[in-house]
Amino acid sequence: MIGKEQTENLRKELEKKKLDALLLINFSSEHIDNTLYYFTGIEWVEHSYAIIGKDFEKLYLPQFEIERCEKETWIKQIEELPKQKTLENITKSLRGKKVGINGEFLPANTFEKLKAKLKLTDFSSAIKNLRIIKTQGEIALIKKAANITAKFYQNLDFSKNETQISADIGFICAQNNAKLAFDPIVAYDSNSALPHAKTTLNNGNGALLIDSGAAYKGYHADVTRTFSLKENDTEFEKIYDLVLNVQEKAIEKVKPGVKANAIDNFVRGELKKKGYKFIHSTGHGIGLEIHEAPAIAEKSKEILKENMICTIEPGIYLSGKFGVRIEDDILVTKDGCEVLTKGIKK
Amino acid sequence: MIGKEQTENLRKELEKKKLDALLLINFSSEHIDNTLYYFTGIEWVEHSYAIIGKDFEKLYLPQFEIERCEKETWIKQIEELPKQKTLENITKSLRGKKVGINGEFLPANTFEKLKAKLKLTDFSSAIKNLRIIKTQGEIALIKKAANITAKFYQNLDFSKNETQISADIGFICAQNNAKLAFDPIVAYDSNSALPHAKTTLNNGNGALLIDSGAAYKGYHADVTRTFSLKENDTEFEKIYDLVLNVQEKAIEKVKPGVKANAIDNFVRGELKKKGYKFIHSTGHGIGLEIHEAPAIAEKSKEILKENMICTIEPGIYLSGKFGVRIEDDILVTKDGCEVLTKGIKK
Repeated sequence: MIGKEQTENLRKELEKKKLDALLLINFSSEHIDNTLYYFTGIEWVEHSYAIIGKDFEKLYLPQFEIERCEKETWIKQIEELPKQKTLENITKSLRGKKVGINGEFLPANTFEKLKAKLKLTDFSSAIKNLRIIKTQGEIALIKKAANITAKFYQNLDFSKNETQISADIGFICAQNNAKLAFDPIVAYDSNSALPHAKTTLNNGNGALLIDSGAAYKGYHADVTRTFSLKENDTEFEKIYDLVLNVQEKAIEKVKPGVKANAIDNFVRGELKKKGYKFIHSTGHGIGLEIHEAPAIAEKSKEILKENMICTIEPGIYLSGKFGVRIEDDILVTKDGCEVLTKGIKK
Repeated sequence: MIGKEQTENLRKELEKKKLDALLLINFSSEHIDNTLYYFTGIEWVEHSYAIIGKDFEKLYLPQFEIERCEKETWIKQIEELPKQKTLENITKSLRGKKVGINGEFLPANTFEKLKAKLKLTDFSSAIKNLRIIKTQGEIALIKKAANITAKFYQNLDFSKNETQISADIGFICAQNNAKLAFDPIVAYDSNSALPHAKTTLNNGNGALLIDSGAAYKGYHADVTRTFSLKENDTEFEKIYDLVLNVQEKAIEKVKPGVKANAIDNFVRGELKKKGYKFIHSTGHGIGLEIHEAPAIAEKSKEILKENMICTIEPGIYLSGKFGVRIEDDILVTKDGCEVLTKGIKK
């Protein structure tokens, strides 16, 4: 169960920053602050509020969600949402206290309302620093997501159109009690030359790029494989081998102490040497979000640490022809790395 | 194509509020401000920025997204995201101007950064007032979403487990170039007594509640049907008939000028008279979000107007036994309403 260990780590940070509590709010089911799930274990609740102090924790939920959420959370103190002046009543006990908020998520107008009554501190970088290092429980969930992802790459039917393949991927997720990490990118031929191609009803007989992943209990995997359906497609094979070679070398560089931007620079440089401009970043962290820290990017300031998890995904895109991207999920270990998606054939 | 008509309406509001421009920002692909799509037509772009002034409009996008987005938007002026000091460079032209933001979405820490250099005004209630009244183009998209939703309610296989049925629904969406509006709720027997039940691998032979919908080009349908798989299930039938009767009467009340909370009060009162506590709201607006204004709820202050679209969804939940909810999507017309989901058998 996610939340308890995370909250213990949070409390050390609250102590360091001399904050009395962290306040987390989800107003909508569409704009979810995953941080609330991260500390409480409660998924997908519109109008949910969590207050986590140094020695107390409390959830406020709509009455009709309480029965379900009690099964999901380690937090015992759950109250029904106040019917009137919700925000005011919930935060009453925090008046005069130093309260952390997730400034990367909390909407500006709620922030302004709260600021009039509470001493707010943006705690988002501390939250990021906690979330960037995965616990053993989180690593296990991402491995599970990677294993479910492997199942659909093992069962692709190349006779189907992009949308049908995408639907098959969704079905395998559902069968395995997982969700799609994101809408799969399934792109044949020239559509594969768009890094974020939209899935169409087309079939193809040349390249096929599939970027997809499962999310298991909120934790994401993210894998890209590119295939050629043509025999002796020498132009494709040349590009493919180049991308694969660069990817393998980049993965070898992943270990604690390495700068994220150094890995991106390496990939960018290798592709440039061969005459190709690399038009996106080398990778990104994965966890409760499909794109989170550490960015493996030109401008990234992160230094890799043990138990970070990120993707490595170089690509070459030949407009109007095809694209090749190869993406794996990499766990930074004590002295190197582990490819969590190595079971998925390249 | 969404965006142009919406922008024309926006400009009248900017004029009224004496604002020079509206600034919209999407940092992440997971926390999407649909308002950017609403005015520009561009879907799902991490790191996208739009500035819409009285007589100009401009988009900033990552280089590798530009080719795709040019096909989606009516906006001609598209620039590549500045590589350095992104926020500062994009907003340079707005210095000293009165700039509207969507304060219900913009994260607090971005707001604080911008506030140091721009004169910001929270424009979120004006945005809500625009989005709450659907254009003819938007109504057509929601009708299309409702028609796709009808397809899966016509093809249910009651021998399947909750997850399998949910996956079938996803497949029919994909076949019809639509997405799931949200993860379907498919709940047999006692699971149906939880209004937001989680889908399991269970089968059932009593009640089956399915709450699901398609989203077509971003516009959502949202329909709930509850079935009994048992013959002569008199306890179920009694509850079902009661919910259906209340729902039909509530729908009859939908027309311009009616207070949203009056409809909720009616439903709540009717259910109470029969001895049942109604534990959620009667309905909600649908559009680019699955839950948007107007709320058909106790505390709602909305008055229904022509071309609003909302759900009406009373329910009774007998803990440990079963639940019944019946939900349709209703367009407020000039002098009454139109049930957009009437083709889906109750």
